[in-house]
Amino acid sequence: MSLDHSSAKPHERLAAHLEADMDAVDQLIRARMASRHAPRIPEVTAHLIDAGGKRIRPMLTLAAAKLCGYDGDSHIKLAATVEFIHTATLLHDDVVDESNQRRGRPTANLLWDNKSSVLVGDYLFARAFQLMVEPQNLEVLEILSNAAATIAEGEVLQMTAAMDITTTEDTYMQVIRGKTAALFQAATESGAVIAGRPDADRAALAQYGDALGVSFQIVDDLLDWGGASGEMGKNTGDDFRERKMTLPVIRAIAKADAAERAFWTRTIGRGDQNEGDLEAAFDLLSAHGTLEETRQEALRFAQSAKSALNILPNDPLRDMMQDLADYVVERIA
Amino acid sequence: MSLDHSSAKPHERLAAHLEADMDAVDQLIRARMASRHAPRIPEVTAHLIDAGGKRIRPMLTLAAAKLCGYDGDSHIKLAATVEFIHTATLLHDDVVDESNQRRGRPTANLLWDNKSSVLVGDYLFARAFQLMVEPQNLEVLEILSNAAATIAEGEVLQMTAAMDITTTEDTYMQVIRGKTAALFQAATESGAVIAGRPDADRAALAQYGDALGVSFQIVDDLLDWGGASGEMGKNTGDDFRERKMTLPVIRAIAKADAAERAFWTRTIGRGDQNEGDLEAAFDLLSAHGTLEETRQEALRFAQSAKSALNILPNDPLRDMMQDLADYVVERIA
Repeated sequence: MSLDHSSAKPHERLAAHLEADMDAVDQLIRARMASRHAPRIPEVTAHLIDAGGKRIRPMLTLAAAKLCGYDGDSHIKLAATVEFIHTATLLHDDVVDESNQRRGRPTANLLWDNKSSVLVGDYLFARAFQLMVEPQNLEVLEILSNAAATIAEGEVLQMTAAMDITTTEDTYMQVIRGKTAALFQAATESGAVIAGRPDADRAALAQYGDALGVSFQIVDDLLDWGGASGEMGKNTGDDFRERKMTLPVIRAIAKADAAERAFWTRTIGRGDQNEGDLEAAFDLLSAHGTLEETRQEALRFAQSAKSALNILPNDPLRDMMQDLADYVVERIA
Repeated sequence: MSLDHSSAKPHERLAAHLEADMDAVDQLIRARMASRHAPRIPEVTAHLIDAGGKRIRPMLTLAAAKLCGYDGDSHIKLAATVEFIHTATLLHDDVVDESNQRRGRPTANLLWDNKSSVLVGDYLFARAFQLMVEPQNLEVLEILSNAAATIAEGEVLQMTAAMDITTTEDTYMQVIRGKTAALFQAATESGAVIAGRPDADRAALAQYGDALGVSFQIVDDLLDWGGASGEMGKNTGDDFRERKMTLPVIRAIAKADAAERAFWTRTIGRGDQNEGDLEAAFDLLSAHGTLEETRQEALRFAQSAKSALNILPNDPLRDMMQDLADYVVERIA
């Protein structure tokens, strides 16, 4: 596969660079999502796996392992593990959020039912744990099982924090670490560990994964308000309607006067939203400058992800991983 | 604690014999179900944990480890692990079955919501995996992660096999192994492995756990028809109404003539059930002798569980575990 490296996006260059390994991950995923007994399992899983996400998490696992000079084949198993954990959480998220669409296609809970999504999600979690045991590396098992707990805790926290206007920035960070950063971090850190690298490299790759994931999620939350451009884009406001407490809102509430506080209590706390409220909310975020502040936070985390990799060997993979951090925030540049 | 050993039930005698360890398991469960960030988690978990099941799975883990002469403390962690896995599956089962009651109390999905049950179940699964990693024993990890996959696969299979009158005995066995026997087996087998026993002892304890679990579940399914007494008891027929394919029905369908087959197709296949159908179904099971056949199967598995332990040292724990196998089938004696 030949790509014009100057114009291809960083994740496309990574995918091209890691193509053989990515193919091996894909084959392993397909082999392990099979079930001798329950055909419903591969049906539901294939629906998501084929929907063609960017496979960013397994790619990060492979990239970290390779950057650390790993030449075994356990990184394939770890990459499939993180994709299974990710897919399982998507299945359960769609049940919890009562979603009907993901990646432009009807969700599994809509095509089959909530039961199938819950149980097939459980199956993929279990398959992930089987896979992660196979490399027989206890440190990797600790990293991945801790990540699974952080993810689950973050999901519960997100559920209970929604609609609560007293939610703090600390809680928000916990939620987004659970939602995104914990698995990014586990992916890159386990790549370093399987390669047997010293603690400093391991810490650097952990830091990269965490900061990249945090940046990624802050950008996502910012784009739900149309970014920091000063104008509300189309397709914005889902989080407001679902009464989610994201960073721009948390900061705006911290700066709110009594009337503004009453507005947030009504719209997010009680969910009593009327025509024009979304625009009024946007104006409050703009007035307090919290969209721009949020943008700056995302840029800081992206920069931190890049810097973390500086201690690692100069290598095309390192450049691509650093470019990926820039690319994550390009959407809000 | 002093119990009259001649009249106490085997699980009560086991609980008394293992009291100190069972207390340690209980403390560990309470410590690990906590969440620094999300108070909803211990709330939901405590609701189930406090409901006072018999804690049969952790007890089996402890009993197997002790019978194998184990004197470390990892068996406490493994016992808490299996109870967490069990509790997680109960939370998800209640969502899938849309249940309102468990152990005579309202279910978590009723008291909170389906979201909480799904996400707290995920959290307990993740906590189980963290706990099972701690003893740093790769064989145990393999046993427990395989059990988790068998459980999840069995749940999906049960969902797709319900309402399907072509379900075979093979499928039924897969379902009940997933539902019950896989975790019983993982509990006893991991007890033997953590104690470092030779393969023969490990196989014996695995066989005991499997056969005990299979027997337990067959008895449960038989009691849903009131047992094999020839009379339909009160509170029977839930499985028929939910169109579940259990052993007495599978065998009766295998012996059905055309008219009987039409009856099963209508009532279980299409779910078109009218007044008197439950009684008619019971009469078919009685006429074909499948309730008695099912009873004989349960007795055979209980006997197999007992025999498996014969190669292990003569010990009060061994006697109690064998008595437990008798007790499981006492309800249908």
